[in-house]
Amino acid sequence: MARHGFSRTLVVLTLTVIALSYSRQPLALQHSPRLFAKFASSTTSSSSSPQFDYHYETRFFQQQLDHFSFSDLPTFPQRYLINTDHWLGPQHSGPIFFYCGNEGDIVWFAQNTGFLWELAPSFGAMIVFPEHRYYGESVPYGSKDEAYKNATTLSFLTAEQALADFSVLLTDLKRNYSAIDCPVVLFGGSYGGMLAAWMRLKYPHIAVGALASSAPILQFENIVPPKTFYDIVSNDFKRESSTCFNYIKQSWDEIASKGQTSNGLELLTKTFKFCQILNRTDDLLDWLESAYSYLAMVNYPYPSEFMMPLPGYPIKEVCRRIDGGPDGTSILERIYEGVNVYYNYTGEAKCFELDDDPHGLDGWNWQACTEMVMPMSSSQESSMFPPYEFNYLSFEEECFKNFGVKPRPKWITTEFGGHNIHAALKKFGSNIIFSNGLLDPWSGGSVLQNISESIVSLVTQEGAHHLDLRASTENDPDWLIEQRATEIKLIEGWINEYYQKNEAVFDM
Amino acid sequence: MARHGFSRTLVVLTLTVIALSYSRQPLALQHSPRLFAKFASSTTSSSSSPQFDYHYETRFFQQQLDHFSFSDLPTFPQRYLINTDHWLGPQHSGPIFFYCGNEGDIVWFAQNTGFLWELAPSFGAMIVFPEHRYYGESVPYGSKDEAYKNATTLSFLTAEQALADFSVLLTDLKRNYSAIDCPVVLFGGSYGGMLAAWMRLKYPHIAVGALASSAPILQFENIVPPKTFYDIVSNDFKRESSTCFNYIKQSWDEIASKGQTSNGLELLTKTFKFCQILNRTDDLLDWLESAYSYLAMVNYPYPSEFMMPLPGYPIKEVCRRIDGGPDGTSILERIYEGVNVYYNYTGEAKCFELDDDPHGLDGWNWQACTEMVMPMSSSQESSMFPPYEFNYLSFEEECFKNFGVKPRPKWITTEFGGHNIHAALKKFGSNIIFSNGLLDPWSGGSVLQNISESIVSLVTQEGAHHLDLRASTENDPDWLIEQRATEIKLIEGWINEYYQKNEAVFDM
Repeated sequence: MARHGFSRTLVVLTLTVIALSYSRQPLALQHSPRLFAKFASSTTSSSSSPQFDYHYETRFFQQQLDHFSFSDLPTFPQRYLINTDHWLGPQHSGPIFFYCGNEGDIVWFAQNTGFLWELAPSFGAMIVFPEHRYYGESVPYGSKDEAYKNATTLSFLTAEQALADFSVLLTDLKRNYSAIDCPVVLFGGSYGGMLAAWMRLKYPHIAVGALASSAPILQFENIVPPKTFYDIVSNDFKRESSTCFNYIKQSWDEIASKGQTSNGLELLTKTFKFCQILNRTDDLLDWLESAYSYLAMVNYPYPSEFMMPLPGYPIKEVCRRIDGGPDGTSILERIYEGVNVYYNYTGEAKCFELDDDPHGLDGWNWQACTEMVMPMSSSQESSMFPPYEFNYLSFEEECFKNFGVKPRPKWITTEFGGHNIHAALKKFGSNIIFSNGLLDPWSGGSVLQNISESIVSLVTQEGAHHLDLRASTENDPDWLIEQRATEIKLIEGWINEYYQKNEAVFDM
Repeated sequence: MARHGFSRTLVVLTLTVIALSYSRQPLALQHSPRLFAKFASSTTSSSSSPQFDYHYETRFFQQQLDHFSFSDLPTFPQRYLINTDHWLGPQHSGPIFFYCGNEGDIVWFAQNTGFLWELAPSFGAMIVFPEHRYYGESVPYGSKDEAYKNATTLSFLTAEQALADFSVLLTDLKRNYSAIDCPVVLFGGSYGGMLAAWMRLKYPHIAVGALASSAPILQFENIVPPKTFYDIVSNDFKRESSTCFNYIKQSWDEIASKGQTSNGLELLTKTFKFCQILNRTDDLLDWLESAYSYLAMVNYPYPSEFMMPLPGYPIKEVCRRIDGGPDGTSILERIYEGVNVYYNYTGEAKCFELDDDPHGLDGWNWQACTEMVMPMSSSQESSMFPPYEFNYLSFEEECFKNFGVKPRPKWITTEFGGHNIHAALKKFGSNIIFSNGLLDPWSGGSVLQNISESIVSLVTQEGAHHLDLRASTENDPDWLIEQRATEIKLIEGWINEYYQKNEAVFDM
C-alpha cells in the first residue's frame, strides 16, 4: 500500500526513532533495541505537494571523501540548493542562511523548512540547503548501491565529515561570491539541529550563530536516563487520557497471548487489516510502536502532512478513538481504531503492508551503529510500551552482524561534549538557540535550560518535533508565533553584533 | 660530525623552519621553498643531559588510527609519560596538566618543558606528556619504516587526528582515575602550542584552558605577509648591528660568484671547514640560512643548550664575530666566524658534515606538504636572506614528487579559522594565553594582541621561541619571571573559575 510505504520513506528523514526492538527474535533477544532499518524501504523522497513553492538552483560541489586523512580517495558530488533572489550581496554583507542537511533527501528538508524561506527576504539573506553526504544524490562511489556496499565504503558516513563538508562548501561559496565578510547563520532540525549546534561550536569562524531545533545532543551515554524518550511518548498519551494510556499498555500482553494461540497470527492480521498474514507478532509490535512514537513527534497543533496526513493534535484523536468504542469493544479493536488515525487518516487504505524485508543498509542505521549510539529503554512503571532495558552488548552484536562494524559509543561525547554541558559552555561559545517543544519525545535529550546569556533554550509546552522550522500557517497558535518572533530577534542580534564587531576590528 | 647531526635531530623537534629553498636545483628552480627534510636525518632524540631530573612512568594507550571514519584499520600504541606524585586526586578535583606533544620524541619535550614540572607541585597537578602520532615511539603499522612507507600509510598523520588522540586519551585517563571532574590545563610550545590552542577551541568540554607558547596559528595563507618570518630573523641581526646584517646580506652574492669559479666549491669547502667537498653552493646556503633562523628562535637571554650549546643572546656574539675581524677579513671569513657560534660554540668540531641525502619522509615534511602549508618569502628590501617569492605551484609540485600527495593549503583555516580571528573569537571561546617573545621569528604568525578578556596575548620584547615553557634558571631576567607569574595567575584563575562553575551547576 503506497500510503504506508510513503510514511516509511519520510520517517527516516526526521530524526529516526530508534524503537524498542532492534531485531526481535522469537525467543532469546525478545527485546533488543530496534534500529530504523525495518521502516526504511528507500530513501529518495519527493513529497512535492503543491503547497511548497520555493525556488532554488540545484548545484553540485566536489568534496573530499575524507577530510581528516590524506588517503587517495575519490571525491564525491555534494548537492546543494541555493537561492540568491533576496541576498543583499557582498557590498552590504548580506547574511547567508545555511541549513545543515540531515539524514535524507535535501529537497524534502528544503520544502519542510518554510521558516527559513519566509525569513530570507526581510534579512536580505542568501539561502543554502546542502545535502548530507551519503543521502539523496550526494553519494560517493558513483551510486547509492556502491556507497552502501559494505563497512569500508560506508566508513566515511560520519557527522564530523558532514560538518567538514559544510565548512568547506561555505568557505568556497564565500570566496566565489566575494562574501568573506558575510555572516552565516546555521539552521537545522532534529539530527540537522545537532549538526547546526555542533558546527557553531566547532567552526565559530565560519558561522555567527545556530538555531538548533529539536536537537537531542544529550541523548548519549547516560547523560539523560535512557527511558526518557519512551516516557515522553507515553506521557503524550497519558495527558490526553489515562484510559487510553492503559489500553495501550495492556495491549502488548493481549497481542502476545493472542499470537501464541494456534490461529493467533491470522486473527491479528484480520484485526489490524494487514494485506498479508503476519509472520510474527514482533512485526505488529514494531508497527504499533512506530506509530505511537511518530505521533508524539508530529503532535502538531494544526492539521499537517509532515509524516502522514493528520489532524491537529493527532494523539487527542487517537485516544478519542481508543477510548470511544462501545462497551464490549476488545482492546485490540480499540488499538486498531486508534492507530488507524496515523496510518489511514484519509480512509483510503483498505489494508496495510508490512515491509518484512529490512533494507539493512540504510544510512541512519549505519550512523546509529557507529557514532550515534543513543541508549533507549522502556520503563516498567512509567512507559506504556513493553518494558525493555537497553543492553549495549546485544546492540554491539547486532551492529556487527548487520554492518560488520563496532560502534564507538563514547566517541560523540568525546568529540562534541555533552556531559555537564552547562558548566562546560557557561563561559565558552555563544549564539546558539536550542528550541524544543515538550510534546516531542526528542526534547528530553536536548538542552532545556539556558546555558549562558547567548546559548539559550526556547521551550514551548505544546510544541512538537522542530515545529518552529515549518512554514507559518493561519492556524499557528500564539505561543508558536511568539517563539518564532523570539528566534528572529535573537538572529537579528547575532548579525548586528557581527557587523559591529567587524567594524570595530577593521577600525583597529 | 656528531655535533652537527645532533642539531639536525633536535631542530625538527621545535617548529621546524621552512626555509627558503625547498629543493634548490641548479638552474630553473633556484629559489623554490625548502622543507625541513634536508635537516632531518633522523628523529629519535635523547638529549638526556644531566640537568633534567624529572620522574615519570611511561605508558602506552591503543588509539584508533582514524578517528573520523570507521574503516577497518589497525590501532597503534600512543606513548605517554605520566606523573601523579603531587596530584591532589579526584576527591579534591586535582588538576591535570597536559602537554600537547609536537613533532618529535615526547621525552625530549618533557625534558625541555621545566615550567610544567615546576608548577605541578603547587597546583597539586597530575602531569601528562602524550606523544604525537607518527613521532618517537608512537607509530602505527609496527615500525617507523612501515608507517613512513608511502602516502597511504602516512595519510593519518594530521593535526586533527592528533587532537582526537589527545581527547580520547584524556577521556580515558579521567575515567580510570575517577577524575571526570578534574580540570585539565593544556600546554604546548611551537606546533604543540598550536595544538593546545586549537584543542581548547575544539574540545572545550575536555580542557578548561590552554597556554599556547610561540604558536604561529596565523602563519597560513595570506593572514600574515609571507615575508614575516625572515624579516624577523633579519631584524634580530640588524638590531645587534646593521654592519652584521649587511655582511650577511652581501654574502649570498659572494658565495654565488665564488661557487661559479673553477675551484669555487673547494674554496668554499675550505672556508667553511666542511669535512667533505661541497657538491653545490645551495647546500652551503641551506646550512647558513638554518643557522641564522635557529639562532633567532633560540636567541635566549642566558646560555642554553636547547638546540646547541650557545651563549646568552647568541646573535649578539655572532654579530660581534662577523663585525669584529681585522681589516681585510673577507666577508666569507666573517660569516664563517659568525656561524661558528651556532655550529661550534664549544670549539670541539674540527670540520662540519653536510647531510646531503635528505631523509625525505620525515614527519614534519609530510605535515608541511599536506595541511601545514605556511607560505614563506624573503623580501628584497627588508630581509638579509636571498630574495625569494613563495610559489605555490612549485611547492605543490615538489610535494607531489616527494610524497605523492597534494597539499590542501586552505584546509587549516577552514578547520581552525585564522582569518579575522579577533572578530571571530571576540565573543567566542575563552581561557587561552598566546605567549610570544618578539625576537622569535614565529611570533609574527602568532596572536600578538588580546582577543577578549580571557583570550589574551602575553608579549615580551626580549623573549624567543617558547622560552616561558623552559625550566627557570638563576639567570632569568625580571621580565621572564614576571611573564611566568602572569601565566600562573591566569591558570589559577581558570581553575578557580571552573571549581566555582561546577559548584554552581551541581547546586542547580
